[in-house]
Amino acid sequence: MMQTEKRWDSLSKPPKSLGKLEELIIQLAGIQENPLPEIGKKLVLCYAGDHGVVKEGVSPSKQIVTAEMVKNFANGGAAISVLAKQNGAALTVINTGMANPIDHPKVLQMSIAPGTGNMAEGPAMTRDQAKRAVELGFQLTKRHIKEGVSLIATGEMGVGNTTSASAIYACMTGLKPEEITGTGAGLLPEKVPHKAQIIQRALKINHPDPKDPLSVLVAVGGFELAAMLGTMIAGAVYRCPIVVDGFISGAAAVLAMTFHREIRNYLIFSHSSGEKGFQEVCRKFSIDPLVDLKMQLGEGTGSVLIIPLIENSLACYHQMATFEEAGVTEVVQ
Amino acid sequence: MMQTEKRWDSLSKPPKSLGKLEELIIQLAGIQENPLPEIGKKLVLCYAGDHGVVKEGVSPSKQIVTAEMVKNFANGGAAISVLAKQNGAALTVINTGMANPIDHPKVLQMSIAPGTGNMAEGPAMTRDQAKRAVELGFQLTKRHIKEGVSLIATGEMGVGNTTSASAIYACMTGLKPEEITGTGAGLLPEKVPHKAQIIQRALKINHPDPKDPLSVLVAVGGFELAAMLGTMIAGAVYRCPIVVDGFISGAAAVLAMTFHREIRNYLIFSHSSGEKGFQEVCRKFSIDPLVDLKMQLGEGTGSVLIIPLIENSLACYHQMATFEEAGVTEVVQ
Repeated sequence: MMQTEKRWDSLSKPPKSLGKLEELIIQLAGIQENPLPEIGKKLVLCYAGDHGVVKEGVSPSKQIVTAEMVKNFANGGAAISVLAKQNGAALTVINTGMANPIDHPKVLQMSIAPGTGNMAEGPAMTRDQAKRAVELGFQLTKRHIKEGVSLIATGEMGVGNTTSASAIYACMTGLKPEEITGTGAGLLPEKVPHKAQIIQRALKINHPDPKDPLSVLVAVGGFELAAMLGTMIAGAVYRCPIVVDGFISGAAAVLAMTFHREIRNYLIFSHSSGEKGFQEVCRKFSIDPLVDLKMQLGEGTGSVLIIPLIENSLACYHQMATFEEAGVTEVVQ
Repeated sequence: MMQTEKRWDSLSKPPKSLGKLEELIIQLAGIQENPLPEIGKKLVLCYAGDHGVVKEGVSPSKQIVTAEMVKNFANGGAAISVLAKQNGAALTVINTGMANPIDHPKVLQMSIAPGTGNMAEGPAMTRDQAKRAVELGFQLTKRHIKEGVSLIATGEMGVGNTTSASAIYACMTGLKPEEITGTGAGLLPEKVPHKAQIIQRALKINHPDPKDPLSVLVAVGGFELAAMLGTMIAGAVYRCPIVVDGFISGAAAVLAMTFHREIRNYLIFSHSSGEKGFQEVCRKFSIDPLVDLKMQLGEGTGSVLIIPLIENSLACYHQMATFEEAGVTEVVQ
């Protein structure tokens, strides 16, 4: 990382003037243990799962929409399908626990259960299910890294999963549910207080321990979030950068960084979120996403959009002339 | 633009959830008068010019660096050279008034004079020179648009041009020089008050009229900034989006929007700037740049970096399935 920083300073531009682009390559050098890092194969892992809590009216969409959108992902019609293709990333869609599984050659079937339990009535999942979901993401990610993938963008689909993410944030940050609960994918503002009350109830009856990420998944998690946690752990173990998307993917990241604080060095936070309370979460966990394009879509769209930024940074790092090569006078003060 | 917004809402995602990506395409539809806009040939116009005010010690770089960097641009070793190539944009470097012109087949020679006058002693240029520099940018841009360029990113090189830009902002916003004067490309912080005093003196002795952009160029401008103003005017006249870079390019944009307020509809503000006072300028002129990657380089690097965002937006807009095509249930509330 120090060698990489030194090379940046030798290139024909004011020192540090490429800002976060320079930091990205320094991070990548650390991840790859290589002062001249490269990115080859890119992959989006898009985890789908359903949430029992939708019975409580926390989402404007019916649960069938998870299945409909997963089909749309696989058929190439969704935003994430288009953006993955546009940025040269392969897209893998994984059923981690859909209530209405769809049979499609492009959807990996790794379902833990047909949706989580209703967190407002009891735990979302058993401890064994949580472990299996994390393991699923870990093994899948490990396999892809071993096969040569060098950048993994995370994405998800699951009607009701902003409720799960908000509950995770509330537990992990100590924010009150009403401080970290928003409209998600189109909930009417007048229904947000009800959503926050459901989260309040779920945290009360399932009493997760913020120091034990697995207990948080058991209490209020989703299978797709657990699998994503597995991906982030594998990224750190097998030295591959994992791109964090927005609000949902960020909840998995908060669990991952609590599980082991070194994992944050392998995460690239891509897009901010306008969802209520997210700025406060960022402050508490020192998260500083690269961009904020006022997107609120999920699916992994934010993670994939920053791939060109990484590739542009790499291009500058590898192709720019040094002061010496260019014959440009360096400022010495 | 209304048709474009309607199409966005028909695509299989929560309405408006692609945020600024949706707004970009709506803007583009308006510029091209086409509900299905496209971007074809992309061009970076990189204007170089020198500034007499460097005699006052406002920059840590010697004036020869303008020439050295222009050569670096043309030889492909600078950040803008690499980024233009990486994003499929042609790069044209134009000598609008270098003190040390370099003879290079890739540098267009359109010099108005070998650098501006020292604004601390008198006007930076004559009114005739200002007009000719604006005209130069206008005609060059017109020609490129007529030849099929559909996106123009602006960039610049000129030792001392943050002094000119700060002076323009001070004049156009009423901010005091010390409120809008920063370190530029590496000036030591303790020398910034002197730079602000020079700007103060220049504004006092040359008394530009903020309602008359040409008078501002005459007083404290640069030839590269004048040419860039010409580019922005031509973009509006010939309906081509012009991407504004950061601090320097933003000063030309402020002049352009004052020259005619409709010009702003043809401008895409790419990158914010950490230069002192820029946030206040953005507030006063309702400028909301797409990204802030903490870059402070200029050259057009910010403008070129957002090309992938535009292309990703276009890909979504043209390739995503509608709710109907995808068979996804729309939320109706």
